[in-house]
Amino acid sequence: MADPSGPPTDQLAATSLNDASSSHVLKAEFSDRFTIRSIISRPDGGSGLAGQKVRVGGWVKTGRKADKDAFAFLELNDGSCPGNLQVIVEASLGDLGQLVPTGTCIVVDGELKLPPAGAKQKVELRAEKVLHVGPVDPAKYPLPKMRLTLEFLRDYVHLRPRTNTISAIARIRNALAYATHTFFQKHGFLYVHTPIITTSDCEGAGEMFQVTTLFSEAEKLEKELLENPPPSEADIEAARALVKEKGDVVSQLKSSKASKQEISASVDELKKAKESLSKLEERSKLRPGIPQKDGKTDYTRDFFARQAFLTVSGQLQVESFACSLSSVYTFGPTFRAEHSHTTRHLAEFWMVEPEFAFADLEDNMNCAEAYVKFMCQWLLDNCIDDMEFMADKFDKGCIDRLKMVASTPFVRLSYTEAVEILEDAVKNGKKFDNEVKWGIDLASEHERYLTEVKVQKPVIVYNYPKEIKAFYMRLNDDSKTVAAMDVLVPKVGELVGGSQREERYDVIQKRIKEMGLPLEPYEWYLDLRRYGTVKHSGFGLGFERMILFATGLDNIRDVIPFPRYPGRADL
Amino acid sequence: MADPSGPPTDQLAATSLNDASSSHVLKAEFSDRFTIRSIISRPDGGSGLAGQKVRVGGWVKTGRKADKDAFAFLELNDGSCPGNLQVIVEASLGDLGQLVPTGTCIVVDGELKLPPAGAKQKVELRAEKVLHVGPVDPAKYPLPKMRLTLEFLRDYVHLRPRTNTISAIARIRNALAYATHTFFQKHGFLYVHTPIITTSDCEGAGEMFQVTTLFSEAEKLEKELLENPPPSEADIEAARALVKEKGDVVSQLKSSKASKQEISASVDELKKAKESLSKLEERSKLRPGIPQKDGKTDYTRDFFARQAFLTVSGQLQVESFACSLSSVYTFGPTFRAEHSHTTRHLAEFWMVEPEFAFADLEDNMNCAEAYVKFMCQWLLDNCIDDMEFMADKFDKGCIDRLKMVASTPFVRLSYTEAVEILEDAVKNGKKFDNEVKWGIDLASEHERYLTEVKVQKPVIVYNYPKEIKAFYMRLNDDSKTVAAMDVLVPKVGELVGGSQREERYDVIQKRIKEMGLPLEPYEWYLDLRRYGTVKHSGFGLGFERMILFATGLDNIRDVIPFPRYPGRADL
Repeated sequence: MADPSGPPTDQLAATSLNDASSSHVLKAEFSDRFTIRSIISRPDGGSGLAGQKVRVGGWVKTGRKADKDAFAFLELNDGSCPGNLQVIVEASLGDLGQLVPTGTCIVVDGELKLPPAGAKQKVELRAEKVLHVGPVDPAKYPLPKMRLTLEFLRDYVHLRPRTNTISAIARIRNALAYATHTFFQKHGFLYVHTPIITTSDCEGAGEMFQVTTLFSEAEKLEKELLENPPPSEADIEAARALVKEKGDVVSQLKSSKASKQEISASVDELKKAKESLSKLEERSKLRPGIPQKDGKTDYTRDFFARQAFLTVSGQLQVESFACSLSSVYTFGPTFRAEHSHTTRHLAEFWMVEPEFAFADLEDNMNCAEAYVKFMCQWLLDNCIDDMEFMADKFDKGCIDRLKMVASTPFVRLSYTEAVEILEDAVKNGKKFDNEVKWGIDLASEHERYLTEVKVQKPVIVYNYPKEIKAFYMRLNDDSKTVAAMDVLVPKVGELVGGSQREERYDVIQKRIKEMGLPLEPYEWYLDLRRYGTVKHSGFGLGFERMILFATGLDNIRDVIPFPRYPGRADL
Repeated sequence: MADPSGPPTDQLAATSLNDASSSHVLKAEFSDRFTIRSIISRPDGGSGLAGQKVRVGGWVKTGRKADKDAFAFLELNDGSCPGNLQVIVEASLGDLGQLVPTGTCIVVDGELKLPPAGAKQKVELRAEKVLHVGPVDPAKYPLPKMRLTLEFLRDYVHLRPRTNTISAIARIRNALAYATHTFFQKHGFLYVHTPIITTSDCEGAGEMFQVTTLFSEAEKLEKELLENPPPSEADIEAARALVKEKGDVVSQLKSSKASKQEISASVDELKKAKESLSKLEERSKLRPGIPQKDGKTDYTRDFFARQAFLTVSGQLQVESFACSLSSVYTFGPTFRAEHSHTTRHLAEFWMVEPEFAFADLEDNMNCAEAYVKFMCQWLLDNCIDDMEFMADKFDKGCIDRLKMVASTPFVRLSYTEAVEILEDAVKNGKKFDNEVKWGIDLASEHERYLTEVKVQKPVIVYNYPKEIKAFYMRLNDDSKTVAAMDVLVPKVGELVGGSQREERYDVIQKRIKEMGLPLEPYEWYLDLRRYGTVKHSGFGLGFERMILFATGLDNIRDVIPFPRYPGRADL
């Protein structure tokens, strides 16, 4: 099934390429092509490969004809790295006019050559055969060569990964995801898939989406009733009369001491008549529309026989695994149905939530700090070319910020200390939109003042007033604060929120009641405290926030492949 | 915040432990305890650690008092491995009666000792201090020591990870997930988070769950209307009269050439009256219940301003990334609202879906084969203790099956060859429930006959009749078959399904119409063929099926942490 002409015979050995760059496998193994990364992302920029024959494929970033149309120069990108490979195609090899439009896909065989002295690239490809052209009509292509705004690109989520920015973000996002798994696996945490569809509520973390089949069931029923109308009252009367008649026959036969056979046959007929009546009665009750009971939606008729929602957090469920497997984490999509149109909120976003037993708040802070540092260092080690692109185009300081966070111990402040700092700032003339006093929930402006202005480093604020935090956070000995912590970083403010969990059965039960919540839905959660309870802690990191922090981008809709927000869920 | 008594001073260095077992980090770094794995999963079973002081925590599997209640012997497990550490506690250290019940959580400091000659364990812990007890009332604990059926455990999803079987499955599941990421990252594939909430349908892959806020909005409105009833007809009439009156005043003032000030003031009043009327009219239109328009549900009032669903596959969306970044994969939850009560179906399950450009069906088969083999070898290398447990308790052959699949080339049969084999089998007396002839979709019994009886190895069947496959699969030159492939393995039958995708615009457009599907919802998908189209391929692997295959378990509800199926979505 491979191309009949076969790959170039003088193909590079995959191993030799791998040696050239330790952190990436360079050869695309399940294809006969070489990735462009494997050619240009070597310490020598690819110059050492001059003379080698390779097959490459990709999409034309920019193309132009030169030398009176004798040649085309194509900047080719295949998504394996931000850089392009310059490909030179002679007119004899194909219709150059078809090759040069931005967005054209080509596959070519050719020989790597040293470019003329003074060229920017360290190596270029002289094409010898054009194996495939996926053309583009430039008059119709929605993403022309000109610079497009990120906002414009949001209307083309299926094509925008072809742009330099969105593809760089995709590679950075991929790197952070793999860094996440690597970090937790390295530290012995087990990845647990908590459910997306849930019947628990993580304590009013936000408005929830409902998951249902009631609409589609109602539609099906409506269609069915049109095709096959429900029985009329007369139909049912007739069926009732038949049951009576058949019943009379049975009684008659019995009283006349008829043969067993005769009686049994008449009983069978009676049974059939009864079944037919009951079916008619059942059908006569069918009503189009959403099923109702006592004036309310009848969720016993829904798929899960009760109301079900999309999860807002996997924390409560993953705690059940921490209270048996000790160190676990979940990494998956979570959902909020808030009608929020800000640049920081999505209806569907990804969260990383580790949860670990035999660990207190300090262990929790240590873990969060180590994890955030690990991700920063990972990007510096594995994505520096993409980070350089972001620094060049969007945020000059983003690489320095990664270096700073990776290498600086996070400053730890109790909530009380943090509020004192903010109050001092106000005394010294700093204006905040939100009032500062002990007991407030820190606003984004406060968080950013602490980390960006006052400390100029990542800050962990811990021991928050219990009134502003969830019931499951461990009550401190002062009975006023809980063992909660937030990690604040420059650029985005709160990146991580976590706590030591309340493991004392009596205390947590009291806290649930204090907060005016019903106990019943939390009985399973209380079981974790009733039976073999254990000190445990955990936190949540908003994955898109981490990408905003790393890249310096402003709008969360640009750092997730398919953003969902009020009024919008493309594809 | 650490325990004031502090960890044992003679604590082992984490590095020395790590050296003892290359594939796992053994010390729990964000806690002052040592994992039980770090002690007993060494080549020497832990005997080399005798004399060391350690802190451990875990849950008692079995406990008993001995020597006239002078000691308690506790089998302690912390989920880090299937094995337990034997802990010996003297009566002077605590209430032994409280320590021995199954499920009790304890943290102890102590010294590792060599056990008496002839003991099964290679090392045991002599406790010196009991730091924590999370007690259990055995009369109430839902999971007593006796062997419990997997079916029984499904009613206790929050506690069942404390059992040997469910914790072994959790570790195997974790290992397979990390193996998946490792495999694809190693081969240069980028992890792409395709959306969970979708407005596309992956071509009737199955019934879909709907995602909505209409019910909660309707409830809110109902409540609001009760608190603040809508205006009466009289209220509206009065408001209308006021508008007329204010309008008259304006006309009067204008015709009487009043001062600008006077006119402007009266115009303001008119404006206010109009606003107030329009608000009343708006409110008078509010109806409790699901919003309707033209006799149908008005989805323009739903969160995304249209109908939205839970994804049945990320394939179509991830293709848009393959057609720009070349090699990508998605690994996430997918959903089917089928009312299926079998042991092989879940309403929420996880799928791995790689998609890669510049690759044909043969590349696709090579990738699927390499990936499945990689996972099998990974379990042999990283989870052998859990696999031994599964072999002992559930499926004697499961380890041999992994070894066979990891080391044997998969047999490749065209669909036509596969049907011929099945027809031969029928001729020779083999009975199938489903008829065998060219054109059928292979049933599970056919698939298992091929892989388990005939070939006794994994089998890849390729080139299926186009009538039984999806529109996006590439039409072969015979115009009868498409470039689809299924990987069949012993024990579960179909494990992987994939295809080369149709990259030719004219052909795929024709196929969509042939299948009676509307073109409009696929216009974005057609764009990928309109602009820079590329040969590409991909497949999907049902992650839970892989776990069933690996462990030999029969019921899919036991291999996912929180199973969802008709009538059931606990937690």
